[in-house]
Amino acid sequence: MSLNFRIVLVEPIYQGNVGSVARVMKNFGFSDLALVNPCPLEGEARAMASHARDLLENATIAESIEEAVAGANLLVGTTGITGTKFDEHVRIPAHIPRDVKKKFEGYSGTIALLFGREDKGFTKDELGMMDMILTIPTSQKYPVMNLSHAVAVILYELSDVQAGETPLADPFDIRLLMEHFSQVLEDIEYPAHKMEKTELMLKRIFGRACLIPREVQTLRGVLRRIQRHLVPKNKND
Amino acid sequence: MSLNFRIVLVEPIYQGNVGSVARVMKNFGFSDLALVNPCPLEGEARAMASHARDLLENATIAESIEEAVAGANLLVGTTGITGTKFDEHVRIPAHIPRDVKKKFEGYSGTIALLFGREDKGFTKDELGMMDMILTIPTSQKYPVMNLSHAVAVILYELSDVQAGETPLADPFDIRLLMEHFSQVLEDIEYPAHKMEKTELMLKRIFGRACLIPREVQTLRGVLRRIQRHLVPKNKND
Repeated sequence: MSLNFRIVLVEPIYQGNVGSVARVMKNFGFSDLALVNPCPLEGEARAMASHARDLLENATIAESIEEAVAGANLLVGTTGITGTKFDEHVRIPAHIPRDVKKKFEGYSGTIALLFGREDKGFTKDELGMMDMILTIPTSQKYPVMNLSHAVAVILYELSDVQAGETPLADPFDIRLLMEHFSQVLEDIEYPAHKMEKTELMLKRIFGRACLIPREVQTLRGVLRRIQRHLVPKNKND
Repeated sequence: MSLNFRIVLVEPIYQGNVGSVARVMKNFGFSDLALVNPCPLEGEARAMASHARDLLENATIAESIEEAVAGANLLVGTTGITGTKFDEHVRIPAHIPRDVKKKFEGYSGTIALLFGREDKGFTKDELGMMDMILTIPTSQKYPVMNLSHAVAVILYELSDVQAGETPLADPFDIRLLMEHFSQVLEDIEYPAHKMEKTELMLKRIFGRACLIPREVQTLRGVLRRIQRHLVPKNKND
């Protein structure tokens, strides 16, 4: 298939979980594993990986999320906690695995699926990096899943996604688009206290829209044209 | 909901897996756990169960599958191996979780989901007890999933099944129906060497059809009428 899913574990603390993740990846036919500052991986990791030790040995070890997701077109962060009062906007909207799968249909590219620390999940800044937030619908009574169980459920769902030939936009071009939007917001004197939330909202809208290269270029053209039609700042004073 | 799913682990050998199964059951809102001759359940089982120790403590401990599934309307056996030459008929047809979920829509009753030993799965006789065979589609390169991962995937899929008010037939009545069919097969001098496979085929057909009580009674009426119209054996000689 022309969609590659990279499983990224961010600072996992239990080596048994890392091994279990390797096993279930191989069960469902995935092989691209990246670990950001993992715990030491020794006998227990290999035991839990069982016949998927090769995945463990070939895993990319990275020192930062940026390094682990290099080249990925989309960053999808998984969280069991879908919005608390203080950080709602970084966790919403959260998509369920079945819907995320539908969004990817017909595309080609590399999608990074990120999983946070077993105890603390992602930091707010890390969540802000994600193009899409994924959550597994669980019981309110006990929503916190074991890491490898969460990976199992998501890979089960994604294992038969119908990939296609439509390329996902280049991550570098998307970053330029987001920076361009921020410039325009500044140009129109957008209120500073709303800036961060609105930038994040735009990122999430474009993230779940799975932009293609031409769309990014057209959007940038629109932004350039807007900028040309703005009243120059010194005249407006 | 009016559908109760009982998770039955048959002779599990790793206590960590039993604890992990309890946890993921609670994650997805299930609580009916039965263990057939389990390994000793000690600290590791409790550690892996995490906040689902109550499920572990309330689990039914049974000495046989029959005891563990008492009162269940349907027995669904999970297997990673879907048909080898020597025992194809006991494993086929195997249904994937998504399709099984659809079959249960609209029904009420108790469905036992059975999982075999980590190393050897089910025996042939045990598979013969199942009304339905469930399998998770996995990679050919490494199809053997960890026990708790298999439970996680299946409960994820079943956690939002749309139950209803149509009652599943009573297991005792279904057993009488199957015995009645066997009598009729004998009455018509069905070839002995085909008997077992055909009985199993009938069991699986009725299993995946999710019979309701009236259907069982009507089928028995048909069988009685067939028997009354058969040429008496002594006259046929």
